[in-house]
Amino acid sequence: MKFTSRYATSLALFTDMYQLTMAQAYWKKGMAEQEAVFHLYFRKHPFNGGYTVCAGLADAIDYLKEFRFSPDDIAYLGSLKGSQQQPLFETEFLAYLQNLTFTCQVDAIPEGTVVFPNEPLLRIQGPILQCQLLETPLLTIINFQTLIATKAARLVDAAQGDRIIEFGMRRAQGPDGALSAARAAFIGGIGATSNLLAGRYFDIPVKGTHAHSWVMSFPEEQDAFAAYAEVFPHDSVFLVDTYNTLQGIKKAIMVAKQLREKGAELLGIRLDSGDLAYLSKEGRRMLDEAGLPEVSILASNDLDEYLIQSLKLQGARIDTWGIGTKLVTAYDQPALGGVYKLAALRGTDGHWEYKLKLSEQLIKISTPGILQVRRYYGTQNFIADMIYSEEQPVPTDATIIDPADVTRRRTLSADEDFENLLVPVFRNGKVVYQEPDLKTIQARTRQQISQLHESIRRFLNPHLYPVGLEEQLFKEKMEIILGIRNKETGQ
Amino acid sequence: MKFTSRYATSLALFTDMYQLTMAQAYWKKGMAEQEAVFHLYFRKHPFNGGYTVCAGLADAIDYLKEFRFSPDDIAYLGSLKGSQQQPLFETEFLAYLQNLTFTCQVDAIPEGTVVFPNEPLLRIQGPILQCQLLETPLLTIINFQTLIATKAARLVDAAQGDRIIEFGMRRAQGPDGALSAARAAFIGGIGATSNLLAGRYFDIPVKGTHAHSWVMSFPEEQDAFAAYAEVFPHDSVFLVDTYNTLQGIKKAIMVAKQLREKGAELLGIRLDSGDLAYLSKEGRRMLDEAGLPEVSILASNDLDEYLIQSLKLQGARIDTWGIGTKLVTAYDQPALGGVYKLAALRGTDGHWEYKLKLSEQLIKISTPGILQVRRYYGTQNFIADMIYSEEQPVPTDATIIDPADVTRRRTLSADEDFENLLVPVFRNGKVVYQEPDLKTIQARTRQQISQLHESIRRFLNPHLYPVGLEEQLFKEKMEIILGIRNKETGQ
Repeated sequence: MKFTSRYATSLALFTDMYQLTMAQAYWKKGMAEQEAVFHLYFRKHPFNGGYTVCAGLADAIDYLKEFRFSPDDIAYLGSLKGSQQQPLFETEFLAYLQNLTFTCQVDAIPEGTVVFPNEPLLRIQGPILQCQLLETPLLTIINFQTLIATKAARLVDAAQGDRIIEFGMRRAQGPDGALSAARAAFIGGIGATSNLLAGRYFDIPVKGTHAHSWVMSFPEEQDAFAAYAEVFPHDSVFLVDTYNTLQGIKKAIMVAKQLREKGAELLGIRLDSGDLAYLSKEGRRMLDEAGLPEVSILASNDLDEYLIQSLKLQGARIDTWGIGTKLVTAYDQPALGGVYKLAALRGTDGHWEYKLKLSEQLIKISTPGILQVRRYYGTQNFIADMIYSEEQPVPTDATIIDPADVTRRRTLSADEDFENLLVPVFRNGKVVYQEPDLKTIQARTRQQISQLHESIRRFLNPHLYPVGLEEQLFKEKMEIILGIRNKETGQ
Repeated sequence: MKFTSRYATSLALFTDMYQLTMAQAYWKKGMAEQEAVFHLYFRKHPFNGGYTVCAGLADAIDYLKEFRFSPDDIAYLGSLKGSQQQPLFETEFLAYLQNLTFTCQVDAIPEGTVVFPNEPLLRIQGPILQCQLLETPLLTIINFQTLIATKAARLVDAAQGDRIIEFGMRRAQGPDGALSAARAAFIGGIGATSNLLAGRYFDIPVKGTHAHSWVMSFPEEQDAFAAYAEVFPHDSVFLVDTYNTLQGIKKAIMVAKQLREKGAELLGIRLDSGDLAYLSKEGRRMLDEAGLPEVSILASNDLDEYLIQSLKLQGARIDTWGIGTKLVTAYDQPALGGVYKLAALRGTDGHWEYKLKLSEQLIKISTPGILQVRRYYGTQNFIADMIYSEEQPVPTDATIIDPADVTRRRTLSADEDFENLLVPVFRNGKVVYQEPDLKTIQARTRQQISQLHESIRRFLNPHLYPVGLEEQLFKEKMEIILGIRNKETGQ
């Protein structure tokens, strides 16, 4: 099937066309092996939030480990024609590609770490031709999983400890959209998924109830519940809104009582439409009055973090939240605008030349250097993050400057605890990183978020966590910008 | 790598957990083989539009052709535990699954057809257990590709014949999100993609320019252009906004003139930031004055159909539109709310029993029957669509009733030309459908949309295309609804 054959040979072609034309141009100009540094980062938190949870590294590692051009890939590239119907790629260049192996250094911030705008999540150092080819796949993988992990973490925050199940598969953006989303949602703190394939591949707990069609395939709703309970006496959650929700709850209660006579307990009921605040309170009352206080209430129906907050404010009695579309597509912002920018190029004299991409807006100008992120810890919360270039020693008492507002500065004492967030992942093309399992990553997310002040975690106008450029780096950046601007206007 | 291994054995587990628990329950209750009819449809056009372009059938066919549970799948299901730590699935049921082969009848509306709310895009008829398992994968595939094909068609409408290139891969929802989107975008009318893997698998033209990093890796912008042109004399499009757009255009012009001396022509320049209306007009003027009227202008930067319309209204001189994020994620509505509903169940007496799912809102109540969609054609435009049940003969002069507004009725004369949209795709589990190639599907989309009145194609408050239930079907549906409601309130 296509899902298989699509991925059967190699994923080296999973990149933008221009990466290959640039590759040929680098090769042709003798620049292919010139050492470069690229950073992958985003400029703005998704969802107007105050924090982002990075994710996707494991898939990026998988991609890089297997990076190679298959003979089929080469044949395809050889078939591409230019505007004059001439072959676009030269035979010798294709031979070069066929022999290409991944030799880069990769440093990355581990999955489940809370990250902020302009912090490199990945740093790729190596031959510019290789770095360039990797731009698109790395962005595709990291952008999406980071987006979904962040959305998930927000849902978990809103649910205040209630259980959340992800079941958005049917509304996901393609099969892999669903799989990647299930993985990233788990990293963000979601407890279970309905996606069996994700359960199998990522060892995520799988959960489910039953569909309306189950009820509709019986003449009577109560018979449908009874039949389901007969098959799953200890694992039944009844969907009660096929015809009329309050009637459905009454029938669920009758079947729950029959079940109890047989020594089993109904796990829960599920509300999937209507006024969830009213119905959950009424359902809770009915279940409690029937002596079924342990039967939980699961609610679903286009829920997101704002609806969860609103339902909680209304006193809804919902124990478990089923979240689909709004989670797996990150509905209110379905893409993270992560970018991948050249930051340094090693000259023929062996020295690094710093590079940046200008923009009309200061905040959109990339930061040059071989960047690292240092996080300073207080007793309870994170204090601030410093972006610095590893080329230069960090002063004992370092000052950071917010590139978005140069009047925002802060001096960080060497007495504070700190940690460098980027860790080695590949050295000379070989993995040197021990990947944590998914549960460990999920725990890291919780732990990280717990160290953010609540003002940073709130959804509406969150407080800005302090992130700045180390002073020397800031000055170098400004000099380069002014140098380019002077040159441009001087022409 | 995981992308491969994820899909290496089978995709039978690419479904929701509850489909499997229901499957065991059907099996246990002796209902597994009971014949059912399910329809896949949506209730509302995406993007508040007036039409939708269906897509994804080819992938659905691929999925169904390969449908089987692998030994690994069975082992995984066998490992799942219930709330009492007991195995959730019985050994005999798992043996049943392992031997299961796909035997259903599938009818579908061909890809590239314009479709409307409540029209079944797919009709699955067969053992209820099989139909049920297929709900999630079919929805995932059809929902997403239909969404993107529709977004693409709107972009094509807005661009009024200008060329559009899709290059959203880096912002797509995972690797398959990018691949499926490239395919669906092509169906909707997009001319090319930057996604090489999509180009290879779907034979879509691939296009690209170069990145800012190419310019940044040279000391001078003009040298970067010259070097690129040296490698691709006939295929260069220069990205001119790395430092200063107007300066960049000047340098592009200088290199274009050098190129002409060597007998080659610059293909175009690309604007990726700033005021695209102003810059494209200024760029056009500069290029024309330099004697380069054939050099085209490509623009990109978070464009969508509304921005294209706005830029055209402002007189922007853009020849080619590069569309990324807003297309591949369908940013303003990243999910189509397609559903999959049981519509009929064959009783032990051999007769079909009609089924529907109630809702508070009449428009959300599913339609029972074994449904077909008949489209009536005028000389220029489509006249109306009739949804009817194949169980009953259609009267010569058929009346259709809009289920959303029962006062909207229309009688369709037997003299009109018509076509039944659902065609046989599987019979007894075997493909009986000849899949058209992607270019044919793209042509169908254009042809279909050209038969919609312009009032239906406009973006703001489009006119409602008439779709109704055939009168007998409408009456049967109303009777069933009233029957259920009477029963519920009578209890």
